[in-house]
Amino acid sequence: MRRFVIGSARNLIESSRQKYQFKRSILSSSYRFLSSSPAADSPSSSSSSSTMAHPVSLNTINPKVIECEYAVRGEIVTLAQKLQEEIQTKPDAHPFEEWTLGESVSFILSLRQYSPPLYFCSPWLNSNILYCNIGNPQSLGQQPITFFREVLALCDHPAILDKSETQGLFSADSIERAWQILDQIPGRATGAYSHSQGIKGLRDTIAAGIEARDGFPADPNDIFLTDGASPAVHMMMQLLIRSEKDGILCPIPQYPLYSASIALHGGTLVPYYLDEATGWGLEVSELRKQLETSRSKGITVRALVVINPGNPTGQVLAEENQKAIVEFCKQEGLVLLADEVYQENVYVPEKKFHSFKKVSRSMGYSEKDIALVSFQSVSKGYYGECGKRGGYMEVTGFGADVREQIYKVASVNLCSNISGQILASLVMSPPKVGDESYESYSAERDGILSSLARRAKTLEDAFNKLEGVTCNKAEGAMYLFPRIDLPEKVIKAAEAAKKAPDAYYCQRLLAATGIVFVPGSGFRQVPGTWHFRCTILPQEEKIPAIVTRLTDFHKSFMDEFRG
Amino acid sequence: MRRFVIGSARNLIESSRQKYQFKRSILSSSYRFLSSSPAADSPSSSSSSSTMAHPVSLNTINPKVIECEYAVRGEIVTLAQKLQEEIQTKPDAHPFEEWTLGESVSFILSLRQYSPPLYFCSPWLNSNILYCNIGNPQSLGQQPITFFREVLALCDHPAILDKSETQGLFSADSIERAWQILDQIPGRATGAYSHSQGIKGLRDTIAAGIEARDGFPADPNDIFLTDGASPAVHMMMQLLIRSEKDGILCPIPQYPLYSASIALHGGTLVPYYLDEATGWGLEVSELRKQLETSRSKGITVRALVVINPGNPTGQVLAEENQKAIVEFCKQEGLVLLADEVYQENVYVPEKKFHSFKKVSRSMGYSEKDIALVSFQSVSKGYYGECGKRGGYMEVTGFGADVREQIYKVASVNLCSNISGQILASLVMSPPKVGDESYESYSAERDGILSSLARRAKTLEDAFNKLEGVTCNKAEGAMYLFPRIDLPEKVIKAAEAAKKAPDAYYCQRLLAATGIVFVPGSGFRQVPGTWHFRCTILPQEEKIPAIVTRLTDFHKSFMDEFRG
Repeated sequence: MRRFVIGSARNLIESSRQKYQFKRSILSSSYRFLSSSPAADSPSSSSSSSTMAHPVSLNTINPKVIECEYAVRGEIVTLAQKLQEEIQTKPDAHPFEEWTLGESVSFILSLRQYSPPLYFCSPWLNSNILYCNIGNPQSLGQQPITFFREVLALCDHPAILDKSETQGLFSADSIERAWQILDQIPGRATGAYSHSQGIKGLRDTIAAGIEARDGFPADPNDIFLTDGASPAVHMMMQLLIRSEKDGILCPIPQYPLYSASIALHGGTLVPYYLDEATGWGLEVSELRKQLETSRSKGITVRALVVINPGNPTGQVLAEENQKAIVEFCKQEGLVLLADEVYQENVYVPEKKFHSFKKVSRSMGYSEKDIALVSFQSVSKGYYGECGKRGGYMEVTGFGADVREQIYKVASVNLCSNISGQILASLVMSPPKVGDESYESYSAERDGILSSLARRAKTLEDAFNKLEGVTCNKAEGAMYLFPRIDLPEKVIKAAEAAKKAPDAYYCQRLLAATGIVFVPGSGFRQVPGTWHFRCTILPQEEKIPAIVTRLTDFHKSFMDEFRG
Repeated sequence: MRRFVIGSARNLIESSRQKYQFKRSILSSSYRFLSSSPAADSPSSSSSSSTMAHPVSLNTINPKVIECEYAVRGEIVTLAQKLQEEIQTKPDAHPFEEWTLGESVSFILSLRQYSPPLYFCSPWLNSNILYCNIGNPQSLGQQPITFFREVLALCDHPAILDKSETQGLFSADSIERAWQILDQIPGRATGAYSHSQGIKGLRDTIAAGIEARDGFPADPNDIFLTDGASPAVHMMMQLLIRSEKDGILCPIPQYPLYSASIALHGGTLVPYYLDEATGWGLEVSELRKQLETSRSKGITVRALVVINPGNPTGQVLAEENQKAIVEFCKQEGLVLLADEVYQENVYVPEKKFHSFKKVSRSMGYSEKDIALVSFQSVSKGYYGECGKRGGYMEVTGFGADVREQIYKVASVNLCSNISGQILASLVMSPPKVGDESYESYSAERDGILSSLARRAKTLEDAFNKLEGVTCNKAEGAMYLFPRIDLPEKVIKAAEAAKKAPDAYYCQRLLAATGIVFVPGSGFRQVPGTWHFRCTILPQEEKIPAIVTRLTDFHKSFMDEFRG
């Protein structure tokens, strides 16, 4: 057994010595940590050219690109993928249980290799690895909503719309919807660039969906369709950030997209801390404190980012709390950047999603009073269509001249992908009572959402049963973010391994169980506290196994390190 | 008639005074030119708030965003859309021929309204407006390649793959290809985030396609799949540009994406002029001259952009010329950014497309010798799938550590859309001899390409018959870029109208004929020379009408202004 594990570590390194520079690059970068001769492993590779008089080197690229590094990378995921490859190449490989903890850990900690972003993850449904690290539902087996896919397929290949066989393959209302959408597209050309804000007819549909959701008017000309929410966030950061003197208030813990995009655009992240003790409460007093602190340092705070429902924290804001936040932004002249991509993911009866636009309008504030950007995506909700890259931002309260600038930035990339645009219109106008697809659609939707609620509760309870672990309820979104109090011995062991204690715990968990959590340090947290993020997305039948493996591991881990 | 036209100008302004701020913004910005009170037209609109203590105003946004403005906007397109709306709202509206030139022009020149990018264009197939301004084939009626759309539809809705009706609706090889592709996607989840470089199996296919094209090996790990070529270009600019002291050598005339992205990332565009007299020849002596000039000004030139086949110029580089360019980049330590999105669009037997990678490898240069990025897109070629936003860049000759940084930037947006990824793999591996779809596929492809070649020739000949106009051959790409020598009287009239002379000509042409060309000033040109860009994309049956209207207009225009 020992021989196997040591061998497997070697294999892992050898298997990486392959013909592709990129794989070599992974190693060379790891070797940089392990030896003093960076290019030693690849004398003839292009990677060595970076150490020669190459036109481009780490010393000559945009430092903002390097800067954004630490916020978006998760070593744990690469580690999981390496282990996965290892098991794949050895079909007869023993399950994790057979690994002896000490060895597997020594093997894991012997590596310092390339670390891709924590949300890069190629799923492996039937693997010993359980990916609980990323909000990528369909990668874990969630099925797409049939009606949405029917419409997308028909819009991709309209030639079959009037064929008789199509009636047998597609629902009547999906065919009807496809015709409606095609009629909204000039020349029915789903392969043409659209208006840079997105196809007008689809924006009309989305605006109608927002009106139905909020009970307040929405303007199709306020909608900017984008390839998912991320490019929309980048667009706003690009607009607002002039230099490192411009600050953006972001929640801590936060979703790494924000720290990454602020770094890429050369701004300053102004942190505000969510209060774990009150279920990740967002206190306006904390906002004000941080605002004043940063202003005293000469930072001009431009905007406030609020993620509701929260990622990674899962809280759903109360309407009163939202009103106070709107009031704060109005008073302080901040743009409110409302990340509302989890608006469909609410699991507790006592909480309800309210858009910030609805809240501000219900306070009697018009767009003259507050500048508000709401981000929505097709990647989350019950649909989870991450790969379609669809989303939009609703931009209100900006001057016409500034809006033109936002439009211009949008137009430099021509337009977002039309399938994503169509899907964004579909999630904002799903089948209605009476439509042929309504029953199957609502069964699919409710099945997914109720299952997610059960998974959230089961995992929350399991975490709270673990020694030293406390876990707030996931009221919404797709994650739990438990806090773990680690014995002093663990802190020391992690220190010795040059790891954050929560990263050390997650790597030990992975090595022992195959479960992938993301250490809280990837999201930032109150200094001295340790957490990990766990998605509630693994299919329901896998949850018991996760709970059992986790519980067993945690007990033995604590036994090992308890003072 | 006069009353109608003046009325129509008023209607145009009135019809824009609508409930949507964005439309209002169009006017308010036009009024900025027409009056001294910017907000006068919209006292109660949000646009006025931008003049109040608004958190965001033109004075407080990122100046780089404002900076990039002039390179990407084309007033002519908005003007065309306004005229189109005007005609749409008056179904009984007279054709252009009925307009009296003086009136239409006075009406047009009375406007100074909002100008969106020249490539934003909502097509209107049956309009009096002939959009010749944008490389958006399907917006002008070009049909997508059936096989590609079949595969996309099946991948969007795999549930129908094993249904019996599907056999009757889809070709056998499209079904087989869809299965192959789905098997390359972990969990067959087309709705999941992929690897941030794109699905590995699709990159394998693309690399194989590049190998087949070039006869030299390609590495799937060098491929970065992107939402069209534009985001890939942005990614490289973001990587290379640190400050305004970093320069990028770009051809003049150039495609505005380059000037826009360089401005957005805060760099300096270092122009090199293509030699119109030698068919838009690219002279290395000119490259060296401009390089040295900019270096003497303290600019660090990082990269050379080459667009081949050329946009807007249409030339196809000779292999010897390409070798000299590669040599130049190697000697001067420049990254070669090769825009090769028109690689399928070559119309003359004497010219052939050679990728810069093939050329550099054929010179015996490996990636240790030259840093090269090749951009490809699904938007051009014979497929013209602009709305699918698919494309890739092949990145070779960068150090492993720098490549990791490129990967990281890619990963901040998670991944490109999966349909676009699939389509990119399809255009690099279309049906082969023996496949059920091969005949129909090649008929569709050849039909489009041969028609484009005929259209290019017809338009080229027509331009060369016009007084004072000389037009190089469109050897490739999708455009002609004729030069027009304008009488002194035109220069004066344009000056009086505060327009570039070529912009003045294009607006007069539009007003008189409904034909939309883009003035050369939008692409930059040798100072004192005037051009316009005309796509060869209008459907073939419309070409004669374009030629006739153009010829008639040009004659009367020259008669009006001839000294």
